Amino acid sequence: MDVASTAEAIRSMEIRGAGRIARAGASALLDLAQSYHGEDEASFLAELDAAKRTLLDSRPTAVSLWNGVHAVVRGVKDQPDLASMLALVESNAQRFITRSEEAVRQISLIGAKRIQDGDVIITHCNSSAAVGVLKEAYAQGKRFKVYATESRPWRQGIITVNELAEAGIDVTLIIDSAVRSVMKYANKVFVGADTVTSHGALINKVGTSQVALAAKEARVQFYVCAETYKFSPMTLFGDMVTIEERDTEEVAKDGEVRPEVKIFNPVFDSTPAAYIDAIITEAGMISPGSVYQVMVESLGEEAFRMED
Amino acid sequence: MDVASTAEAIRSMEIRGAGRIARAGASALLDLAQSYHGEDEASFLAELDAAKRTLLDSRPTAVSLWNGVHAVVRGVKDQPDLASMLALVESNAQRFITRSEEAVRQISLIGAKRIQDGDVIITHCNSSAAVGVLKEAYAQGKRFKVYATESRPWRQGIITVNELAEAGIDVTLIIDSAVRSVMKYANKVFVGADTVTSHGALINKVGTSQVALAAKEARVQFYVCAETYKFSPMTLFGDMVTIEERDTEEVAKDGEVRPEVKIFNPVFDSTPAAYIDAIITEAGMISPGSVYQVMVESLGEEAFRMED
Amino acid sequence: MDVASTAEAIRSMEIRGAGRIARAGASALLDLAQSYHGEDEASFLAELDAAKRTLLDSRPTAVSLWNGVHAVVRGVKDQPDLASMLALVESNAQRFITRSEEAVRQISLIGAKRIQDGDVIITHCNSSAAVGVLKEAYAQGKRFKVYATESRPWRQGIITVNELAEAGIDVTLIIDSAVRSVMKYANKVFVGADTVTSHGALINKVGTSQVALAAKEARVQFYVCAETYKFSPMTLFGDMVTIEERDTEEVAKDGEVRPEVKIFNPVFDSTPAAYIDAIITEAGMISPGSVYQVMVESLGEEAFRMED
Amino acid sequence: MDVASTAEAIRSMEIRGAGRIARAGASALLDLAQSYHGEDEASFLAELDAAKRTLLDSRPTAVSLWNGVHAVVRGVKDQPDLASMLALVESNAQRFITRSEEAVRQISLIGAKRIQDGDVIITHCNSSAAVGVLKEAYAQGKRFKVYATESRPWRQGIITVNELAEAGIDVTLIIDSAVRSVMKYANKVFVGADTVTSHGALINKVGTSQVALAAKEARVQFYVCAETYKFSPMTLFGDMVTIEERDTEEVAKDGEVRPEVKIFNPVFDSTPAAYIDAIITEAGMISPGSVYQVMVESLGEEAFRMED
Amino acid sequence: MDVASTAEAIRSMEIRGAGRIARAGASALLDLAQSYHGEDEASFLAELDAAKRTLLDSRPTAVSLWNGVHAVVRGVKDQPDLASMLALVESNAQRFITRSEEAVRQISLIGAKRIQDGDVIITHCNSSAAVGVLKEAYAQGKRFKVYATESRPWRQGIITVNELAEAGIDVTLIIDSAVRSVMKYANKVFVGADTVTSHGALINKVGTSQVALAAKEARVQFYVCAETYKFSPMTLFGDMVTIEERDTEEVAKDGEVRPEVKIFNPVFDSTPAAYIDAIITEAGMISPGSVYQVMVESLGEEAFRMED
Amino acid sequence: MDVASTAEAIRSMEIRGAGRIARAGASALLDLAQSYHGEDEASFLAELDAAKRTLLDSRPTAVSLWNGVHAVVRGVKDQPDLASMLALVESNAQRFITRSEEAVRQISLIGAKRIQDGDVIITHCNSSAAVGVLKEAYAQGKRFKVYATESRPWRQGIITVNELAEAGIDVTLIIDSAVRSVMKYANKVFVGADTVTSHGALINKVGTSQVALAAKEARVQFYVCAETYKFSPMTLFGDMVTIEERDTEEVAKDGEVRPEVKIFNPVFDSTPAAYIDAIITEAGMISPGSVYQVMVESLGEEAFRMED
Repeated sequence: MDVASTAEAIRSMEIRGAGRIARAGASALLDLAQSYHGEDEASFLAELDAAKRTLLDSRPTAVSLWNGVHAVVRGVKDQPDLASMLALVESNAQRFITRSEEAVRQISLIGAKRIQDGDVIITHCNSSAAVGVLKEAYAQGKRFKVYATESRPWRQGIITVNELAEAGIDVTLIIDSAVRSVMKYANKVFVGADTVTSHGALINKVGTSQVALAAKEARVQFYVCAETYKFSPMTLFGDMVTIEERDTEEVAKDGEVRPEVKIFNPVFDSTPAAYIDAIITEAGMISPGSVYQVMVESLGEEAFRMED
Repeated sequence: MDVASTAEAIRSMEIRGAGRIARAGASALLDLAQSYHGEDEASFLAELDAAKRTLLDSRPTAVSLWNGVHAVVRGVKDQPDLASMLALVESNAQRFITRSEEAVRQISLIGAKRIQDGDVIITHCNSSAAVGVLKEAYAQGKRFKVYATESRPWRQGIITVNELAEAGIDVTLIIDSAVRSVMKYANKVFVGADTVTSHGALINKVGTSQVALAAKEARVQFYVCAETYKFSPMTLFGDMVTIEERDTEEVAKDGEVRPEVKIFNPVFDSTPAAYIDAIITEAGMISPGSVYQVMVESLGEEAFRMED
Repeated sequence: MDVASTAEAIRSMEIRGAGRIARAGASALLDLAQSYHGEDEASFLAELDAAKRTLLDSRPTAVSLWNGVHAVVRGVKDQPDLASMLALVESNAQRFITRSEEAVRQISLIGAKRIQDGDVIITHCNSSAAVGVLKEAYAQGKRFKVYATESRPWRQGIITVNELAEAGIDVTLIIDSAVRSVMKYANKVFVGADTVTSHGALINKVGTSQVALAAKEARVQFYVCAETYKFSPMTLFGDMVTIEERDTEEVAKDGEVRPEVKIFNPVFDSTPAAYIDAIITEAGMISPGSVYQVMVESLGEEAFRMED
Repeated sequence: MDVASTAEAIRSMEIRGAGRIARAGASALLDLAQSYHGEDEASFLAELDAAKRTLLDSRPTAVSLWNGVHAVVRGVKDQPDLASMLALVESNAQRFITRSEEAVRQISLIGAKRIQDGDVIITHCNSSAAVGVLKEAYAQGKRFKVYATESRPWRQGIITVNELAEAGIDVTLIIDSAVRSVMKYANKVFVGADTVTSHGALINKVGTSQVALAAKEARVQFYVCAETYKFSPMTLFGDMVTIEERDTEEVAKDGEVRPEVKIFNPVFDSTPAAYIDAIITEAGMISPGSVYQVMVESLGEEAFRMED
Repeated sequence: MDVASTAEAIRSMEIRGAGRIARAGASALLDLAQSYHGEDEASFLAELDAAKRTLLDSRPTAVSLWNGVHAVVRGVKDQPDLASMLALVESNAQRFITRSEEAVRQISLIGAKRIQDGDVIITHCNSSAAVGVLKEAYAQGKRFKVYATESRPWRQGIITVNELAEAGIDVTLIIDSAVRSVMKYANKVFVGADTVTSHGALINKVGTSQVALAAKEARVQFYVCAETYKFSPMTLFGDMVTIEERDTEEVAKDGEVRPEVKIFNPVFDSTPAAYIDAIITEAGMISPGSVYQVMVESLGEEAFRMED
Repeated sequence: MDVASTAEAIRSMEIRGAGRIARAGASALLDLAQSYHGEDEASFLAELDAAKRTLLDSRPTAVSLWNGVHAVVRGVKDQPDLASMLALVESNAQRFITRSEEAVRQISLIGAKRIQDGDVIITHCNSSAAVGVLKEAYAQGKRFKVYATESRPWRQGIITVNELAEAGIDVTLIIDSAVRSVMKYANKVFVGADTVTSHGALINKVGTSQVALAAKEARVQFYVCAETYKFSPMTLFGDMVTIEERDTEEVAKDGEVRPEVKIFNPVFDSTPAAYIDAIITEAGMISPGSVYQVMVESLGEEAFRMED
């Protein structure tokens, strides 16, 4: 798909999901390079830059898109000639696409090693990476118990318990208020990530930080499963991750509460680095203190120059 | 109502609510004394003791009933004659009934003094004492903001927000997972109590301990509003407060989850004394370390002899 | 001095200091009883009650005055006849006066036992009870080192270091910002009290709670030296202790800062019970959890009935 | 045995053990009263006081002896005549002896209620009260797992594991350094007490405070099993509990280490009140904040007047 | 200015301030390269090395000077010929100078993004980077409230409040002891840095660590604004940052205290990494765990070889 | 020694100790390169790979061996020709061997700088790096006091105290249970490392984590002395470090305990990154958050690709 169509599809939410939009962005730039017929380096760079901006504007707060696009353009402008530029765009794009497609699988393999027979594990909401870890561990023959939260208001915990039960895992559904009650029986927590900041904080489904706090209180290991394209370079420049608020109808139906009652319905919350034991990425299991290092490795230092 | 009918009404849940069953028990003993026609101290004491046991057996885990009944029999067996015995039962019963009826009002008056203009307060579930404090403070002209949790699975938070809104208070409904998100804006928490143990722990609606933990993390005052008849002398003898589990249908409807998924639905949780700044009772605002002292004051030392 | 004159002298700050105003109040009631010439119990009780109110109104927030006055009237209305009433007022008053006069001395003796050779002690501001402890320990031959804070804005630390140096104690003056720097060398903290609340919190010179927090962080014992007449029964009824703000000129002289700069100059702060290892009173060394118990012992339960 | 012989037997360590020396002291005063042939109150009080001093001097730091002796003399000097004095000494002594003999049994009954099927419990050193709790729970049919520390240098843990194993309990011996390693599997700790201070601290076998700290870190309940005669009224007067140091040969045999190596071999350590969930006494399960209250109940207020 | 004059000007404090001395050092080496007339690589390297030592000796503990000088010589000795060497010295020097001049501006831009309408911010002492952040945020139209500490003994807080007020910001001056009192109203702290160590600790104006501790206690974000030339590579080799002590007259004037009173007047204190949420540098906002990585990026690995 | 013999010697424990086996592995590959007579790149790479696997299989869980072997093969397969390959193997091997031989010395030099006159230091077990630090500091003229734990069951503390005493250092032996008792006198802890994980946790002699916890509680600096070849790249792939259990006879001799008593005798425990102030390596003193970065520096990114 070309750049304009991709941008439109991202904007209209036709293409959704952190991984998919990142790969769509990379793919659009790959398409641009493969179909490029000009002969001039400067023109190509200008076109590439315009494409990059078009894509980023289609969803300005999407960390994964930013990462996908920047991974593709990395080093391109330093190439000696057009051929090298096109070749680098192609190889960058293909590498990013492949790696991001394999990321959840790699995370599952790494995370599964952290699970042992007899573990009691808590998970929150429905993260494909966290569920992947649990299913991989089970497939390897490990036997453990999982508590999964309902995760109001959307109740994605229903999906989680069904996925885990289908895989054969011993899983128990609890309401969100019961996390601390079962934390005393647990020894590990696995959650996913929406965004990881440059200083190691986790932005994830609201309630995650409460689970982390209760885990800390009870000396329970807290693992975050996060593809590196969820690491947000924008936070390096100080950007706050916007905590989206959703429709209040998700919390109380029309008529349930008096009209003067307000409803606050944030989608995410922020878990401080100090509550995170390790972040499991496709590049390995790291400390929250190493997020900046992984960003630099993935994108190169030049990505980290603030623009005017 | 006589002892047998009262016991039956308590057993059948016709008489419900911590305060009401306590007063019903006291009232039944008052009735016994007022209608007593025997002439012999020993017979009366035997009858009184039998009545006490009948009442306690009607709901063996109800702390308030235990307290109501023991408050009435306090000191009776040390009286020199039958007339004094009857008189003491009557005065004890009337004092207990009056005090317990006034308890929520007293707590509201005391608690309201802890609230100041501009406060941001969190409450959990639906406690008449906590709501009473908030409404009293508002009635005194104080202006503040309240966040109230939904309190799944029964969603009593809906009742709370409607009660507060009706009183004119600025109230916002949040899901249970958003407590830590709003804790950073809050400076006080007021919750009710199901039971308070002899070592100062609070047993209350599941999720309360998570609210307390998040309050502790953020240096937010955590106040428990508890009538003294919720102080459990049985815990002094080591009894564990049973955390009731309720119907799993409250959490997920039939068919929502695969049949092999378990559901754990505890009604209460336990908040350690270290997370409680003060307990506001009708007898004053105390430290969790003073619960034993208040028990002794209310019931007399002789109530605290373990029986064989 | 009679009641009216005493009240006036307290109001005009002629009589100042927590201990002195408490004893003045007790003394005025003693004077009332000794000079009483009526013959009727009801009249005496009415007069006593009026005197009590007059005295309390002279400084409504003074905890010690409240305690002194209530200690004198304790049990009086339950006496069978006027003679007993007068006698009880006299004995109550004399006991309160004697005990409060001896309180600092008793605290010094108790506190000095907590000090050992080689200790490194921090104190804040200028508390006669805390200084008394240090001087008593030194007089007993113990050798230790003291760090005393400057205590801006009034710099009462200057008084403290001079008093301690005069007594021969090895004392070092530090600025208030250096508390955490020297806490790593210290093993004990002794501070005074303005007020102690019913739930065990300490209200004392601003900065005290920072010293307590730094002590907690470093596993350093934190002792509060407090006469029991500084225990506030009003807090039992929920009253907030008002944190007085003083003249902003104490912080920055006129002209030092631009006119639009605000200055906030609170006199006291509040230290939570959890940061206090023990409260040393003339009645012994207790846990903050035992404050309510000591209040009941000192004043009797009947003092703790909220009035309409 | 008469007072002099008893004192001598205590001094020579012929009579040993906290409970036994307390009862010996009480028994000696009972003997004094029963064999008293004088007719004068003043003479008796003088003799009683001399006996009290003789006994206390036989082991001045023994908390239980102090408690036993003071429990016997409680209220005696306020009696109207000699007969009442003698009767009170007798009844006080008999009550103290009976209660202290029954204390471990009562504690076992109370503590056993805190244990549930499936618990994993840690104990340290060899406490008859803590072992009593575990054995009682097992005898009631509860099934649980115990980790017991070796407790160097005397290795009393060997006794503990043998006692528990003999009773049929599933017990595992660990070295003292492995406490934190197994704490992640545990949910409760039960230890005994040498002394409990007026502000709620626990003095017990060295290492206890490390167990408590590791329990706190892991949200594991920490219970102290302590007869009330181990509550130290002397600490109310500020007395430091002396931490005895024992022979260095217990740690390293002669020749094992170079002569210039020092050895520090303290017998006890001090666990702060904040790490203790509850103290289980024969009078019930209380908060560390209630120790002062229990002291007052046991000994009466008059015991708490510092003597010159 | 040539190397000798620059070294002298730094030694005599004619050139002062972390940024200025760093740029002066870099500039002197730039001058050396630009005026070099030799033809031999070895001679140039020898001269460069001598110049480097001369400059470093002029203020051996100045982190920024060390960083400026090492940034200039980076990679020089690996160049193939003299021309490349000279060119690299020039480009290194110019880049360091430009970046360090722009550093505070970059930090202001990044830090300002962390500020939101309605924030309540605490700052300590007078840091140009922290003040820059606040002024930039205000200039962007954000409206917030600032509490600034007096910062005894030099009272640089007076400068801070005047600078902020002049910019139009709502600012309140407090004494250093009032930090914990206002922390309950605050949600963010911004401070500057004297030095940042290789393991992420902050060395800054005395009192900073108390502010950080109080922020941690209240779940308030603690941001450090630090140019990367304040990161100390010497700490990587284990060097302790010397905490300078200043004239005791700054604390108490001559005659204010008795001659035997000591005064301890440290200029800086050390804030552990665990209390720092993020360090805002011109290279981005990072975790304290990433300081080592930024050092390596800035200076190259070869700078980190300990010399004999 | 050739690869096969080396592998055998490692397997049979003839070659032991983290540093020695790492250097043996590197040395065997050096030997392979030096004695290589083939002429074909592909064959050499195949042989090298086979040798690598043989060596790693000789002790699959030895972190240092893994690091030594990977350090030698780093970059080899990217070389243009056989000569370069052989040369790189040689230079890699020699550099690894030299650096690892010097590592303890470098750590001693860096660590000694962290020690100051008057320090009171705790160490646990017997670590050559930690002992090296202490001896170096003493040799530099610093005077301090050390507490060393017995370290049951092997009691390696006996070796430590003898080594330190022989060097002239003031050292005191304590039992493992006395760590928290002496922590209040200490200001620094130095321990060694068995393994350091990619997320900054320390695996070391059982009891280390208790020492770290007690240090944290008392605001005492906790330093880990670890050669970088103890950093475990396998943990990056999620591998759990196996905590070896040893013979139960080490804890209790046959017959000491009843046969049904179990004994749990783990050799190591795990200390979380949050309890570690700094890790002192031969490459400098770093934050636990920088472990991943040092791994990448030492081994190159390509080492961190998970193999199928």
